Amino acid sequence: MSQDCIFCKIMDGDIPSAKVYEDEFVYAFLDISQTTKGHTLVIPKQHTKNIYETDATTAEQLFSRVPKVANAIKEAFNPVGLNMLNNNEEAAGQSVFHLHIHLIPRYGSNDGFGAKWETHTDDYSNEDLQSIASSIAEQVK
Amino acid sequence: MSQDCIFCKIMDGDIPSAKVYEDEFVYAFLDISQTTKGHTLVIPKQHTKNIYETDATTAEQLFSRVPKVANAIKEAFNPVGLNMLNNNEEAAGQSVFHLHIHLIPRYGSNDGFGAKWETHTDDYSNEDLQSIASSIAEQVK
Ligand SMILES: [Zn+2]
Ligand SMILES: [Zn+2]
Repeated sequence: MSQDCIFCKIMDGDIPSAKVYEDEFVYAFLDISQTTKGHTLVIPKQHTKNIYETDATTAEQLFSRVPKVANAIKEAFNPVGLNMLNNNEEAAGQSVFHLHIHLIPRYGSNDGFGAKWETHTDDYSNEDLQSIASSIAEQVK
Repeated sequence: MSQDCIFCKIMDGDIPSAKVYEDEFVYAFLDISQTTKGHTLVIPKQHTKNIYETDATTAEQLFSRVPKVANAIKEAFNPVGLNMLNNNEEAAGQSVFHLHIHLIPRYGSNDGFGAKWETHTDDYSNEDLQSIASSIAEQVK
């Protein structure tokens, strides 16, 4: 547990939450912003700042529960789709620095959530793509 | 392998891709749309349609590799943040029906990707939130 972490305090019961699921490794609760109805956060009990600092075991424990929680949201509210989003670092929208997965059920195109995507397919040659892929592959540890 | 699945064909080598990472259970390659530079897809070798239909073991195998690939992207391009996005069902933006995790490095607020978030905190009482959470919790299997 991290002393100043709002999510650690929620799991500890010091701050109330609307709990959806809990087990030895994972806690799930509603995001109070309710971007869409049923918007849920799934977090590891192990405090970890973001995806970069998450070890493989914590990632396994966290994500093995995601299908279970996603299906429960589906059963409860029958959404037309569901987005899973995780933001790492402030520039990507992270505001609480305890790794969390947003599960956002979708009810239509104007339901409170959406992603802005630019497509740059034409900006890159096949050679460019191979070069970018190699730059990443070389860094895999 | 699913006969008509473009991602199964990519893993099989029938369709070329810019490969970033591969092991027994997972394959990662560049999204040709390159929403931002280094935009990578991480997929399980086991064909599964979406997060709802993914068993816990496949989820574990897939996500245990995500920190590794995310860190490689970070090392390669030094982004200011990174979003992880997964779209389930067409209404949520899914266009290939083989589970895939988008890793989208961020370079600033105007870099090609963004999320539209509405905040509905004031629309729900504490009682409303407890009721929504219970509706989901009751469906967890
Ligand atoms: Zn914490
Ligand atoms: Zn497939």
